[in-house]
Amino acid sequence: MYYLGLDVGGTTIKAGLVDENNRVLDSRSTPTIIDDLKGFISKLTDLIRDFQKSAAIDAVGIGVPGLRSSRTRAIQTSPNIPCLNNVNLEQTVADVVHLKVVTENDANAGAYAEFRCGAGIGLKNLVYLTLGTGLGSGLILNGSLYTGASGYGGEFGHTIVDPEGRPCSCGKRGCIETVVSATGIVVTATAKLKTAGDSLLRQVAPPLTAAKIYDAAIRGDQLASQVFAETGRWLGIACANLINLLNVEMIIVGGGVMASGELLLGHAGDFARQYAFPPSFEDCRIVQSKLWPDSGMIGAALLARDR
Amino acid sequence: MYYLGLDVGGTTIKAGLVDENNRVLDSRSTPTIIDDLKGFISKLTDLIRDFQKSAAIDAVGIGVPGLRSSRTRAIQTSPNIPCLNNVNLEQTVADVVHLKVVTENDANAGAYAEFRCGAGIGLKNLVYLTLGTGLGSGLILNGSLYTGASGYGGEFGHTIVDPEGRPCSCGKRGCIETVVSATGIVVTATAKLKTAGDSLLRQVAPPLTAAKIYDAAIRGDQLASQVFAETGRWLGIACANLINLLNVEMIIVGGGVMASGELLLGHAGDFARQYAFPPSFEDCRIVQSKLWPDSGMIGAALLARDR
Repeated sequence: MYYLGLDVGGTTIKAGLVDENNRVLDSRSTPTIIDDLKGFISKLTDLIRDFQKSAAIDAVGIGVPGLRSSRTRAIQTSPNIPCLNNVNLEQTVADVVHLKVVTENDANAGAYAEFRCGAGIGLKNLVYLTLGTGLGSGLILNGSLYTGASGYGGEFGHTIVDPEGRPCSCGKRGCIETVVSATGIVVTATAKLKTAGDSLLRQVAPPLTAAKIYDAAIRGDQLASQVFAETGRWLGIACANLINLLNVEMIIVGGGVMASGELLLGHAGDFARQYAFPPSFEDCRIVQSKLWPDSGMIGAALLARDR
Repeated sequence: MYYLGLDVGGTTIKAGLVDENNRVLDSRSTPTIIDDLKGFISKLTDLIRDFQKSAAIDAVGIGVPGLRSSRTRAIQTSPNIPCLNNVNLEQTVADVVHLKVVTENDANAGAYAEFRCGAGIGLKNLVYLTLGTGLGSGLILNGSLYTGASGYGGEFGHTIVDPEGRPCSCGKRGCIETVVSATGIVVTATAKLKTAGDSLLRQVAPPLTAAKIYDAAIRGDQLASQVFAETGRWLGIACANLINLLNVEMIIVGGGVMASGELLLGHAGDFARQYAFPPSFEDCRIVQSKLWPDSGMIGAALLARDR
């Protein structure tokens, strides 16, 4: 049995062929068309057909950034891929490829992958966080993917931590993703560069990125190190809040920012210990993703198998 | 079949006899002894025996403020009733009264009551908040009481919303309960009185309480009204965060502060609408508790029946 998992991002659709043992046998990608539904569907179904030439696919799973309604199965809203708003992508794609198709929020799919075959195997309660341009998240509670009353659950990145804080892509202010994300790291560094003195970051070719700030931090740059300490503090507070509310056994962190791995998680663990209830903290581990950058793709395939 | 529910508070233990139809037939109370375990058990078991004289009790449920371990069934920590720390209250009480005894966090018990026979009948996903001295909370997710990996889940009141904020009884700073609770309302009013001009609150006999501030607000006092507007704003942000993360169908608010009912919930609803994702907000109602002040007691009895 073969399952195809697709991870739809703002710029690229990644697809992977996954077998019964959760292994990725082959993967390909295609650019995402964000503002023309016909073009989007055409690119996506071409990719599926391409895989069908070499393998008998049993079902297709698609991870999409945005809110998916569990009642209508439509994508309720997808700010980065506006052509998907109010589209029943499952039905639309199934009509073309004549296969079982399931959709899910991309971070929820990532959580499911880590739960089934990643860092969280065997656990019943975990949170998956993915730190990229934004902060995605998915919940596994009582041994299953938790999506809430309407399918919209798991949006931890839009927890308001500072109502007068930075503007967020969602239109509000002070969401945790405005500080804990690649974007947030760059904003924090840029603000510090306006007032602080010497820093390696002043010699870096623009644009400034989280990766360049990380490079400076490991080369001993004080300002860059402070940026990671502050980001790790917010991530730690965020983890403490999740631990107190949900008493999960594991918080799994993936995403592009995790190239900075232990530097960020070290700070986060220290602050989570400081802010969470000790018994709840003791029962939770904060670890790196095992499957990133493929977690969303693998999770989509496994949801196509299991749902 | 009769079930006895006990709600252990910092000053009083309330007990209610509940029948198969979730009705409270009789209720009594006794003072809580907080620092002597033998004395505490003696008072509590006397109360149970008193009920046993007039009814054949099938099981006893006890709601306790603090963290209860689902692994050991012991009360891991109870800051307001220190004699219960690390005590297996279920076993200790069962040994005396020779009945099935179950324990649970008091706010979790309240959530269970609202779910079974209160404001949340028929729903699968809800949050119960109780605004008193602190901010208690319990979660019903996917149609059952959610307590997390170790039983400690549901502690929303200790979500950090301002790391440099007010000191909290838990030893940290800036927990949401430092602003959204009767205690928080008094602190907010006291701070405003230091700088603002005229207010009815200046003529009130000490000590200042949330109830007196509410009375002043409904009599048109501007400062008191601002206190409720600010508290409602924080409660609204808290609700928005719960709605985005958990996509619940209902947030039920109980507790002593709910004497101020619609005044506080009106503000909270306005701000939750402003801060939550619109589709998630549309699927959630924010309502008053139907069972408060008996929700914890009834929930404990129903858990004794159902667990």
